Amino acid sequence: MTARGRRGPEQLLADIRAAAVEELCLVGVGRLSMAGIAQRSGTARTSLYRRWSAPIDIVLDALEHDFPQETVSPGTDDLRGDLVRALVSLAEWTTTPTARAAAAILTERDRHPELAEALYTRVFDPKGGRFTRTVLTHYAEHGHIDPSLVSDVVVDIGESLVLKHLSDTGNVPTHAHLERIVDHAILPAVGLPRRRTCPEEDSRNPVS
Amino acid sequence: MTARGRRGPEQLLADIRAAAVEELCLVGVGRLSMAGIAQRSGTARTSLYRRWSAPIDIVLDALEHDFPQETVSPGTDDLRGDLVRALVSLAEWTTTPTARAAAAILTERDRHPELAEALYTRVFDPKGGRFTRTVLTHYAEHGHIDPSLVSDVVVDIGESLVLKHLSDTGNVPTHAHLERIVDHAILPAVGLPRRRTCPEEDSRNPVS
Repeated sequence: MTARGRRGPEQLLADIRAAAVEELCLVGVGRLSMAGIAQRSGTARTSLYRRWSAPIDIVLDALEHDFPQETVSPGTDDLRGDLVRALVSLAEWTTTPTARAAAAILTERDRHPELAEALYTRVFDPKGGRFTRTVLTHYAEHGHIDPSLVSDVVVDIGESLVLKHLSDTGNVPTHAHLERIVDHAILPAVGLPRRRTCPEEDSRNPVS
Repeated sequence: MTARGRRGPEQLLADIRAAAVEELCLVGVGRLSMAGIAQRSGTARTSLYRRWSAPIDIVLDALEHDFPQETVSPGTDDLRGDLVRALVSLAEWTTTPTARAAAAILTERDRHPELAEALYTRVFDPKGGRFTRTVLTHYAEHGHIDPSLVSDVVVDIGESLVLKHLSDTGNVPTHAHLERIVDHAILPAVGLPRRRTCPEEDSRNPVS
């Protein structure tokens, strides 16, 4: 219990972030307001201004907080597994409210280019830039793949195919589809043999 | 000169298609109307109903008319060139008004799933489904690449990377970037050696 009421500070912050994201998805970038976020989160507008100078800062704060950080498993013997897990993180994130907020910001890129820019510099870039880049860079640095093959195009293959599948079908790719993206597109691009589609092999690790 | 006035029938049809596309981009799928298209194209609403039963049919007609058809050069000795040309067609199309209309339809997928469906079945699928698929299938059928490597994931690599670049940067990829997509991602996925980045080699043909 705090002086503010029933919510602790953590819960209050979570509620404000969620309210900002919901508000953006409902009214769009152009009509996002501190008043709207204050009302939706049951907070005073003055409290919001104590921490943030503009409503979009609350949205970016929510995105920074919720956007997944790609990780590498201990050691360097599971490139395929690490790549699949990176794409699973992305696929799971696409189903969250913050992903819809990110899409809303990108839709408004022409009218508000500075917000799209902020999305990249404050949210995406600090978390690795794009999914699979952290993993590919790690394995290249440890001599498991040729670093010269890890180009800007190659680190974008996985994320591109996941987002395209979502946009084409309206559905998040299944785990099996994410594995096929890794096997058919990413591994060959970094010079590793493509795994043949063979269901009983799918649980084995091709690089260990 | 026709009985209708100054425009010949070809020009009239072109004007009506352009008006439908503009109107969609301005008002969105939900408020698209025959009246709006009639006014914008300087046509009577009754004339429109003689050919189309709903305003969205005019938009789909415009898309069918303008969407590029991927082609293969004579013979089978320029896989790389054909792939690059397929991606150039896509990149050029993304700058047209019909591409904005397609994006507007996909943005409204949740509210109007039948329109997104029609976009695929009437426009994209008859023209090859996705750019590079026609080329890859052609070279696979002629024994230049292993047909088992030409999976749904692989035929989507090029289009995914082009659209992702557009969405990340707001810019259409340069010709050099399209070549890098082919060299770094598509050729390795169909079992061909990746070309090293070497500017003076870029005009040579790696498969002839």
